[in-house]
Amino acid sequence: MRLSRYFLPTLKETPSEAQIVSHRLMLRAGLIRQHAAGIYTWLPLGFAVLRKIEQIVREEQNRAGAQELLMPTIQSADLWRESGRYDDYGKEMLRITDRHDRDLLYGPTAEEVITDVFRNAVRSYKDLPKTLYHIQWKFRDEVRPRFGIMRGREFLMKDAYSFDLDSDAARHSYNQMFVAYLRTFARLGLKAIPLRAETGPIGGDLSHEFIVLASTGESEVHCHRALLDKTIPDDVDYDGDLQPLVNDWTGLYAAADDMHDVTKAASLGGSLVTARGIEVGHIFHFGTKYSKPMGATVTGPDGEDVTVAMGSYGIGVSRLVGAIIEASHDDNGIIWPESVAPFHVGLLNLKAGDTATDETCARLYQALGPDRVLYDDRDERAGAKFAAMDLIGLPWQVIVGPKGVAKGMVELKNRATGAREEVSVDSALARLAV
Amino acid sequence: MRLSRYFLPTLKETPSEAQIVSHRLMLRAGLIRQHAAGIYTWLPLGFAVLRKIEQIVREEQNRAGAQELLMPTIQSADLWRESGRYDDYGKEMLRITDRHDRDLLYGPTAEEVITDVFRNAVRSYKDLPKTLYHIQWKFRDEVRPRFGIMRGREFLMKDAYSFDLDSDAARHSYNQMFVAYLRTFARLGLKAIPLRAETGPIGGDLSHEFIVLASTGESEVHCHRALLDKTIPDDVDYDGDLQPLVNDWTGLYAAADDMHDVTKAASLGGSLVTARGIEVGHIFHFGTKYSKPMGATVTGPDGEDVTVAMGSYGIGVSRLVGAIIEASHDDNGIIWPESVAPFHVGLLNLKAGDTATDETCARLYQALGPDRVLYDDRDERAGAKFAAMDLIGLPWQVIVGPKGVAKGMVELKNRATGAREEVSVDSALARLAV
Repeated sequence: MRLSRYFLPTLKETPSEAQIVSHRLMLRAGLIRQHAAGIYTWLPLGFAVLRKIEQIVREEQNRAGAQELLMPTIQSADLWRESGRYDDYGKEMLRITDRHDRDLLYGPTAEEVITDVFRNAVRSYKDLPKTLYHIQWKFRDEVRPRFGIMRGREFLMKDAYSFDLDSDAARHSYNQMFVAYLRTFARLGLKAIPLRAETGPIGGDLSHEFIVLASTGESEVHCHRALLDKTIPDDVDYDGDLQPLVNDWTGLYAAADDMHDVTKAASLGGSLVTARGIEVGHIFHFGTKYSKPMGATVTGPDGEDVTVAMGSYGIGVSRLVGAIIEASHDDNGIIWPESVAPFHVGLLNLKAGDTATDETCARLYQALGPDRVLYDDRDERAGAKFAAMDLIGLPWQVIVGPKGVAKGMVELKNRATGAREEVSVDSALARLAV
Repeated sequence: MRLSRYFLPTLKETPSEAQIVSHRLMLRAGLIRQHAAGIYTWLPLGFAVLRKIEQIVREEQNRAGAQELLMPTIQSADLWRESGRYDDYGKEMLRITDRHDRDLLYGPTAEEVITDVFRNAVRSYKDLPKTLYHIQWKFRDEVRPRFGIMRGREFLMKDAYSFDLDSDAARHSYNQMFVAYLRTFARLGLKAIPLRAETGPIGGDLSHEFIVLASTGESEVHCHRALLDKTIPDDVDYDGDLQPLVNDWTGLYAAADDMHDVTKAASLGGSLVTARGIEVGHIFHFGTKYSKPMGATVTGPDGEDVTVAMGSYGIGVSRLVGAIIEASHDDNGIIWPESVAPFHVGLLNLKAGDTATDETCARLYQALGPDRVLYDDRDERAGAKFAAMDLIGLPWQVIVGPKGVAKGMVELKNRATGAREEVSVDSALARLAV
């Protein structure tokens, strides 16, 4: 994409309303604009990141055996009355009345809708297990939306729901999501820690939240140092026994402030780490909390009706954009992990209009691919181009100026390390090829 | 995907509430389920089609130079008061009040939001032209939702908005979308006719709607027979002059009932065709209708403020799923065009449990790719498998039974033509390779 054509309204000033670094950088780098309190438009650059994250979440859900569908944003209040949550949910639920005076709501979550889909479609234990998910916009009418898209009102969430015949099977579905979450966050370039969590208003008896570490994070995490170095294998067999892997990740001490056990933590001695983090995922097993009141049953192997055991599994997809920035930035701007970068390469033409420089840039642009390159072809001074490209945070910069071009050389800069080296055009092409 | 694992609740009975064939087939083939009046859940098979259509729409928008962003579903009423449409819009607008008693609405369209984004970001004529689009859920509170997703309340729309310095430039942006629409519908396997249209409540002075032909379509179209045979080139130069191409498509008589000129039509003699169709796209040039009241100006070349000229361009993405089915089905079910088919191949194991048959199926499944194949591995009788696969409408079927397998042969069936032939396993693989 040529920057002269791209819709990328960056800001030179730091917006005064933005209190945290991700919010500041998302506004300055032209990723988002506020439409109303807690409601944002995703500009092309921000939208590209959002879609890349969404796609990684999707791939890891599919790999774990979950199936994607799409439930509507607007839900009928009747189902929430069936589950008993309509009155409980409080003012965070955006309640709506249609032209025929029917009660609707903008879904803050979808346990009721998916349980309704399931009970009307599945009759036999032979059709289990099933884990179904969607990636859909949600709305929670926060009393005080803030921190940009980190605590917005309209937000994009991946929510999965598992249906099993008994709690052992449900535990396996839970473990599949547990592992899929670790894989997802690792692919996003994040260090994620699973914490045993209270089940809260969704209910149930087994729950973990996933915190990604960022020095500017909202909450404090206490954990065993060894958790920070754990990795997750690429080739998980999701049909196999995942319990040993889950145990490996949950066997070490880890707790947020609300579940922190000071005595236990002290026993870790020098292995105790206290860090800051951001919640980006939450998984629950809640058994028959919804299936029982809503009558979601299947015929079991012995011909008797069985109320299915359920779990739900959320990832804050839009929130992850902010979390990644909190975890990966410097004073000059964002530093995108390669997996989610909106473009792979920023190409800086330091003398637009100079024939030789233009030609070298054109060659690099075409060879690397217009979809992977953001080409700053504007008639701007070099300093402004350097600052803009650092702010945007693409993993690589290729800096092309007339002096280098005369020698057949360009400069290659790694945004994360700041390392710059002069290389030949061919070498730059080889290094940046897919 | 193995059908034994897939969430595909097909129906044997024809649902009594469905009045048109696409609605019946979408329910029977397990593409959608109704959640509330005019509000649907897209099950995995239907969602897969929706995403394929969305991706083709996106690719052709990008190719025409439009840039994708994402505006929120929930909009502030204030902007609609600025444009003057808040009171005009009537009961189809879903009006919402939040916890702080602020007026919101579920966007039925996004002229106001994009104009607001534009006016806050763009200052100079040098940043023009810009065409921005998103593919986002909309809500229109239809008094009587019907025909399934064809006239639902929550629906997926691609809406693009162009911003230009003057009306000549705006005409070029309009032509880009005109041509992109023809390309889009052609890739979807549809025969689309552009009709000059009244501009209606959105306003403006130039507008076309795009009708895809389907014998079961909702409206009547009268046009010159030659329009039916027109094709659109693959290699459009969107920066070049598109007017001759647009003239070529608009020079022949074509009108819906509301714009039909009986006298003019009669002069066509035997070249007049009257057919049925479904509206799937609508494009408008409306000049300064929004930019003027909302103050969307740029500094022109002479330093004076210029109010930008705008257009808007919609495609009913979810509606297209129904339109394609209306245009392409038979008594046995759906016939998906290859470009939007949820899977390329249906693999029918006629004797699940028979070692040789299972092995041949497993080989075909792996070689063709689990993402491209829906493998009916269920323990069901052959008749039920044939019926289900015809209903679902994948372009190709590979039918594997023990008799053929003994000879190294399988049957290959083309869903559209019904043609069946016995071929070797290797030949089937070669024919169905990507």
